[in-house]
Amino acid sequence: MKRTLGTCYYPEHWTEDIWAEDAARMADLGLTWVRIGEFAWSRLEPAPGDLQFGWLDRAFDTLAQTGLKIVLGTPTATPPRWMLERHPDMLAVDAQGRARGFGSRRHYCFSHDGYRAEAVRITALLAERYGRHPALGAWQTDNEYGCHDTVLSYSEAARRAFRDWLAQRYQSPDALNRAWGNVFWSMEYRDFDEIELPNLTVTEPNPAHAMDFRRFSSDQVARFNAAQVETIRAHSDAPISHNYMGRITEFDHFATGRQLDIATWDSYPLGFLEDRLEEADAHKRRYARQGDPDFQAFHHDLYRSVGHGRWWVMEQQPGPVNWAPHNPAPLPGMIRFWTWEAFAHGAEAVCYFRWRQAPFAQEQMHAGLLRPDHAEAVGHAEVAAVAADLTAAQDVETTKAPVALIFDYQAAWSWDVQPQGRGCDYFRLVFEVYRGLRKLGLSIDILPPDTRDFTDYDLILAPGLDMPPPDLIPAIAVSGAQALFGPRFGSKTDAFAIPVPLPPAISGLDAVVARVETLRPDMPVPVTGGGAITLWREHLEGGAQVLDRDADGLPVLLRAGSLHYLGGWPDPTYLARVLTRLAGAAGVLVRELPDDIRIRQSGPTLFIFNHGPDPVEFDGTRIPPAGFLRR
Amino acid sequence: MKRTLGTCYYPEHWTEDIWAEDAARMADLGLTWVRIGEFAWSRLEPAPGDLQFGWLDRAFDTLAQTGLKIVLGTPTATPPRWMLERHPDMLAVDAQGRARGFGSRRHYCFSHDGYRAEAVRITALLAERYGRHPALGAWQTDNEYGCHDTVLSYSEAARRAFRDWLAQRYQSPDALNRAWGNVFWSMEYRDFDEIELPNLTVTEPNPAHAMDFRRFSSDQVARFNAAQVETIRAHSDAPISHNYMGRITEFDHFATGRQLDIATWDSYPLGFLEDRLEEADAHKRRYARQGDPDFQAFHHDLYRSVGHGRWWVMEQQPGPVNWAPHNPAPLPGMIRFWTWEAFAHGAEAVCYFRWRQAPFAQEQMHAGLLRPDHAEAVGHAEVAAVAADLTAAQDVETTKAPVALIFDYQAAWSWDVQPQGRGCDYFRLVFEVYRGLRKLGLSIDILPPDTRDFTDYDLILAPGLDMPPPDLIPAIAVSGAQALFGPRFGSKTDAFAIPVPLPPAISGLDAVVARVETLRPDMPVPVTGGGAITLWREHLEGGAQVLDRDADGLPVLLRAGSLHYLGGWPDPTYLARVLTRLAGAAGVLVRELPDDIRIRQSGPTLFIFNHGPDPVEFDGTRIPPAGFLRR
Amino acid sequence: MKRTLGTCYYPEHWTEDIWAEDAARMADLGLTWVRIGEFAWSRLEPAPGDLQFGWLDRAFDTLAQTGLKIVLGTPTATPPRWMLERHPDMLAVDAQGRARGFGSRRHYCFSHDGYRAEAVRITALLAERYGRHPALGAWQTDNEYGCHDTVLSYSEAARRAFRDWLAQRYQSPDALNRAWGNVFWSMEYRDFDEIELPNLTVTEPNPAHAMDFRRFSSDQVARFNAAQVETIRAHSDAPISHNYMGRITEFDHFATGRQLDIATWDSYPLGFLEDRLEEADAHKRRYARQGDPDFQAFHHDLYRSVGHGRWWVMEQQPGPVNWAPHNPAPLPGMIRFWTWEAFAHGAEAVCYFRWRQAPFAQEQMHAGLLRPDHAEAVGHAEVAAVAADLTAAQDVETTKAPVALIFDYQAAWSWDVQPQGRGCDYFRLVFEVYRGLRKLGLSIDILPPDTRDFTDYDLILAPGLDMPPPDLIPAIAVSGAQALFGPRFGSKTDAFAIPVPLPPAISGLDAVVARVETLRPDMPVPVTGGGAITLWREHLEGGAQVLDRDADGLPVLLRAGSLHYLGGWPDPTYLARVLTRLAGAAGVLVRELPDDIRIRQSGPTLFIFNHGPDPVEFDGTRIPPAGFLRR
Ligand SMILES: [Zn+2]
Ligand SMILES: [Zn+2]
Ligand SMILES: [Zn+2]
Repeated sequence: MKRTLGTCYYPEHWTEDIWAEDAARMADLGLTWVRIGEFAWSRLEPAPGDLQFGWLDRAFDTLAQTGLKIVLGTPTATPPRWMLERHPDMLAVDAQGRARGFGSRRHYCFSHDGYRAEAVRITALLAERYGRHPALGAWQTDNEYGCHDTVLSYSEAARRAFRDWLAQRYQSPDALNRAWGNVFWSMEYRDFDEIELPNLTVTEPNPAHAMDFRRFSSDQVARFNAAQVETIRAHSDAPISHNYMGRITEFDHFATGRQLDIATWDSYPLGFLEDRLEEADAHKRRYARQGDPDFQAFHHDLYRSVGHGRWWVMEQQPGPVNWAPHNPAPLPGMIRFWTWEAFAHGAEAVCYFRWRQAPFAQEQMHAGLLRPDHAEAVGHAEVAAVAADLTAAQDVETTKAPVALIFDYQAAWSWDVQPQGRGCDYFRLVFEVYRGLRKLGLSIDILPPDTRDFTDYDLILAPGLDMPPPDLIPAIAVSGAQALFGPRFGSKTDAFAIPVPLPPAISGLDAVVARVETLRPDMPVPVTGGGAITLWREHLEGGAQVLDRDADGLPVLLRAGSLHYLGGWPDPTYLARVLTRLAGAAGVLVRELPDDIRIRQSGPTLFIFNHGPDPVEFDGTRIPPAGFLRR
Repeated sequence: MKRTLGTCYYPEHWTEDIWAEDAARMADLGLTWVRIGEFAWSRLEPAPGDLQFGWLDRAFDTLAQTGLKIVLGTPTATPPRWMLERHPDMLAVDAQGRARGFGSRRHYCFSHDGYRAEAVRITALLAERYGRHPALGAWQTDNEYGCHDTVLSYSEAARRAFRDWLAQRYQSPDALNRAWGNVFWSMEYRDFDEIELPNLTVTEPNPAHAMDFRRFSSDQVARFNAAQVETIRAHSDAPISHNYMGRITEFDHFATGRQLDIATWDSYPLGFLEDRLEEADAHKRRYARQGDPDFQAFHHDLYRSVGHGRWWVMEQQPGPVNWAPHNPAPLPGMIRFWTWEAFAHGAEAVCYFRWRQAPFAQEQMHAGLLRPDHAEAVGHAEVAAVAADLTAAQDVETTKAPVALIFDYQAAWSWDVQPQGRGCDYFRLVFEVYRGLRKLGLSIDILPPDTRDFTDYDLILAPGLDMPPPDLIPAIAVSGAQALFGPRFGSKTDAFAIPVPLPPAISGLDAVVARVETLRPDMPVPVTGGGAITLWREHLEGGAQVLDRDADGLPVLLRAGSLHYLGGWPDPTYLARVLTRLAGAAGVLVRELPDDIRIRQSGPTLFIFNHGPDPVEFDGTRIPPAGFLRR
Repeated sequence: MKRTLGTCYYPEHWTEDIWAEDAARMADLGLTWVRIGEFAWSRLEPAPGDLQFGWLDRAFDTLAQTGLKIVLGTPTATPPRWMLERHPDMLAVDAQGRARGFGSRRHYCFSHDGYRAEAVRITALLAERYGRHPALGAWQTDNEYGCHDTVLSYSEAARRAFRDWLAQRYQSPDALNRAWGNVFWSMEYRDFDEIELPNLTVTEPNPAHAMDFRRFSSDQVARFNAAQVETIRAHSDAPISHNYMGRITEFDHFATGRQLDIATWDSYPLGFLEDRLEEADAHKRRYARQGDPDFQAFHHDLYRSVGHGRWWVMEQQPGPVNWAPHNPAPLPGMIRFWTWEAFAHGAEAVCYFRWRQAPFAQEQMHAGLLRPDHAEAVGHAEVAAVAADLTAAQDVETTKAPVALIFDYQAAWSWDVQPQGRGCDYFRLVFEVYRGLRKLGLSIDILPPDTRDFTDYDLILAPGLDMPPPDLIPAIAVSGAQALFGPRFGSKTDAFAIPVPLPPAISGLDAVVARVETLRPDMPVPVTGGGAITLWREHLEGGAQVLDRDADGLPVLLRAGSLHYLGGWPDPTYLARVLTRLAGAAGVLVRELPDDIRIRQSGPTLFIFNHGPDPVEFDGTRIPPAGFLRR
């Protein structure tokens, strides 16, 4: 398959007389895709029922004339002001009980039926009109579900919907009371309508209550998305996508992903480094102009899975952004670097956000490929270079990786509901394992927890998976791969209780977690042989083979055949030891890479990326900053 | 008296068929007490008026059959959901104006008359039914008053009650205006009904207003408790207790203590270290598995006073808890260590929270003596060791200590209302003095400010006592003990004004506080001879004898006969000097202890505790970590 | 002109029998002015319409008898409690939507018409009664506009007024939509009544929306003040003042200043150092007892400009205050030092806050010239020393400074609305430039952005001025002075958009800001020759002469004739280089001063101040701490 490029364009932001020139410049630059429409509701329907599709018709035509393919976004992330008059109660409500008002975007509650109907209505109008347009290449539903903390809403609509959801799930208040253990503090309900949302309680709510609210909230996103997808499919054969955002774990991306044809995500390496990573200042400073060496790769691998193999970068940072605590410029070459990194991980297309920097409104300080004065911005030349690369280069093959890493959104919620210790975060743990694998030169597939076919994987990891599906272990065991579970594996029932028999309850592995403790970050417990356990530590008992012990003599790593259990949160040193040991047992070749280097095997091709600000000597080749090799 | 052991048990959490086995195992373990009932309202009265006492009858009988004595808790900390339908306005309201909702516990406002009547009703039903039961050993009212910041409520009920309280106190708005100095910013009221609660003002409210609200709020707790106590006494002769929580200063424990027969408290050394001490990280790390060396002892001594000599530990941490920022496991031996520390300070009983770890709801990650799978948890064996100790050992005698430390809840409120400098906290000051005394090997009695008989005390300290009762100084002076006052002694009138003549106004001590300043923590003022004044510093004038001066030549420590005045917040070095000097004058022997060692003289017996993680050589004996000696 | 002294006095706080003695002691001390009345509304009008001016008549007479001149404050910062019954909706509302209640002060919304009418009513009553009183020396409107964050209000009254203000400004919703770029996220309005205040949006509101709200809010303050000023002028010829507070930038002081005859400000050097400066702890510790070396001077120079040359210190800190995080005592001599610093900058009068420390209410821990027991406080003797100084010394001349620094409140709002990077604050930038100039021994005039006559200035600086008036550059260019612009100069249109052509668009200077980035504080970019750019960095393109480049070779400082453009935020080292270079070009003599020394040229007299805690050798003279020289 030929990798392609694109951009995000807002014809409604510009006078019509420059559309044609813009289109020509896009085509000249070698772009294939142009995404439009996603925030344009107030122009498509300035007043209720007053439909104004003429300008969009002309935009389609103008763009199509240069051969560009259009990705059409539904504008449902930005309902116009008049929508609030029709549905005054459609706003989401935050955990403090305050309505989240009009004046920016994403000002709707996923549980509001009236708004969902409006979203379906505008989607149907668009699908009917453009669903068969020859220039239409793909659809995008809404924009960045969950951005700005918008999944969890404590509105009246959410409350009603949650009660219905609970009634469906439990059938009777007694069943719910038993499942949640509401006897604990006399929290028993006699009717589903007595149940409130789990905010503003005196001390923490029942974690089972909180957990069900998290599941419910995720389901509401899926339901909202499904309504749009079904509507589009009725009128169009073009593939449907959604653009996910980095480190959003509040809803299950696999669930919405199953509804879509293509997963896309919005990759802002510098913004993400600053505002959503736990790393120390020295790390953030070192990578301030390149982004974290693993964060983008993680999401590439994640969305390859969410999209069942088909995925794009829908918004690629093209220069400084406007929304992080600090917004530096990328190192020269990084736009090209990021693009090729995405291709190395199998992206079908990379689109730059945005074509031209808007001089007005919220994102006026967000770079584009063009400056507000229509001149080329710094990133423009790098995109031209990528276009030239693509013409010259062989296509990238994608193959299964030897390593599988299981990622479960439900586990993210349950850790969040009950971290038990400050800093204990599921994404952080999984990401640290991912980073550890990458530092050993491994390529990785990220898999959902309902995966049952593990054929061809040599090494499987399921860190932190506290609510594994019952048939997961057998499926992994049968694969013959070396597998690592824990910490916290199987430590919660579906009802958010501690199971008896105690975890991990892995068949064939004689061990129980007799005690759990969480540790101050300044009190790691050394593991014999190097490295340490930090933050989360389990006291393991049982007859299973002990591979490693800590300084107190407690087992840390257990084994039964190909299955391993890790009773704690490993620091990077110990993690490297564990992964190296398992890779060895699996016959997977590892290679300790220099700090700034990461590699990715794509079919027969090896990509080598230097993420650091300095040149690195690697296998006899000097790789400059922002440089990469293809072998 | 024979020291005893017990546990907290929730029969309603388990199927009835295991109660008998649980009871047998408790008795086997050597327990005497089992506390039940405290959160069981929804099982006792699933719907309004639908009383279901059968299961509790059976629990009583089953437990009694093994000889266990029952402490019965009133379930008023957890009103069932239906209570809110009867009293929708019963919820407390936080300082931000948000109702604190159902879904956890303590969801009631102390000022709500309707809820208080309900609490009395359920208490009366329990007292009538079980007040004379042969297995009933004691009562507990409610649970942990003030936990989760529940004393101060800004509800409509509180507002109405506060206005009544003010009307009672001041009789006329004019009197209140004069007392508070409301002329200051035209804050004068013409009617008590014009007075709001002191939250959500533009800048800080009048401190006199805030102070009266603190007094009122404390009184509401006392009134709530008194209603239960009176109800129980009408039907039962068993002693009545309440389980206080660590470092809760929002209500006057002495006031509720006067209503009770026994004071108990809930001792969670590791949780408290992490979440309610100002100490540096190095300290928290060193004591992460043992708890602060003085925090438990302080509360032991405090509750011995609150309970007029009779006190228990009602909930003893038995392993990792679930609610602190980090929740490590105790060092092996600490459960036994903590138990004996309580006995050394005179505890009649120590009960472990809880018998079996609940696998569900909020505290599922809180250890018990049994694991959720019924197996013995780590703490179980340590309790067995204590039971064996008790059989073998002589009982602990309790005697008056040579040192008295006055603790005044009112001072805690006034410092809180007007800290004048960040970090200036009354509890912290008193606790630092307590720690200083302990590091010198002293045993201490903590006394309420209305103490008038100081017979047998050689050394009396009243740090930070800003609103002393008028007859306190004469009572101390007459005792002949060496006494230390200040900083801030007598610095507020009852109406929260600066008195004229200026403080400290100690008869016979010619000194006034001419000026007060608060200091950045990084600018301590050295005292000649060693140590420094930090945070709070007074400029003293007058003819009194000066014992110490600071580097600027200002007096720091004054003396008139046996009375001393300290014009600042001493750092540990200077504090040790002051205490050593006064102890010398008092003829009290001091001994500078190794950092981790603390001792307690109980009648003829000297207890020596090693609170550190390393062995310590003491008087020729090596004390291991978690070790203690009895001499 | 003869410099004079005064104090703030609250006769209503004391019994009438001591007024005469107080007045005599004030006169004895050498005071000329006594400010009264500012918080006394509840005594002037205890109930609606019940006017009680008798006591104020007597206070006037008593004070006048000793020759004191009275500054009469309108009491509108403290409406009595009954006002809320007449105007329940008069309270300001905070950004979280909570009404800011009665119980302290400043509890009114500037947009409330009803309250403004009440303020005019009481002002008229006072003006009619005292406007021609022979002892009346001056008026003060209200007290410290903006203190306690009171400019921005999100009340219903503000909402209505904002809509009217927008309707006036834009005339049609379409014009507003175009100006704000509301097409961006479908934020278009069809009616002004659809526009909400820019709080509680899901993510940040349109910066144009936020900016207009800032302008509106500032206008409301000006309108409120104008109403009082007009009312007073109708009945009195006495000059009218307002007492501004330190580092309040939420409203345009120049706008209110144009309505007044005299600007005054309230100078609390120690409180300000602790609670409103970004400096490091080491700096705050060094100056803890003296205050920041430049903060007071900055405000002196600012208010000289706000008052068109006539300005006072209306409240001078006389000892420890009560409201900062830490409240230390000033170094001995600092009261005199601060007073003379104000005179050196041209203050006509310095008044001490307050005469006698109030023993009650919010400020009871705030020092006065007298203690609560009527004895002289520490500051009293220093004021006596100043009075003696004044008798002995020549008067201070004031002359134009050679250096002009432009300060624009609008820029403060726009930086605040869109900092683009953490720490990017307009006041901070301007203040750092001011400090840099002072460290080079320069005296400075601070000018409003509408200044057009730059005669006699040799050096003009306009750091951070992002919305310059169109005719500013020509006015500066014509002056022939060396001028420095940037960063961010001209980077916003009036409608808060990026202008095209791109900034800085300085005629004759061939340069555009091609890209903006903000930097982590730990990643400064070195400038060749010394120093660095930090926090904010612009990538400059164009043919202008490059005076400095950074380590990446990018231009930092550009020149075209006498006009310079600085493309970033300079660190102190680089700032000193830039200022030295420009001063050199301007023929202004600079002198690098020791760290603690600052100087001020006042006509022929040079004042030299030692702000440090240690003696400093300067030009052969030893200046002690808190010492200053006059040459
Ligand atoms: Zn986006
Ligand atoms: Zn408890
Ligand atoms: Zn003031």
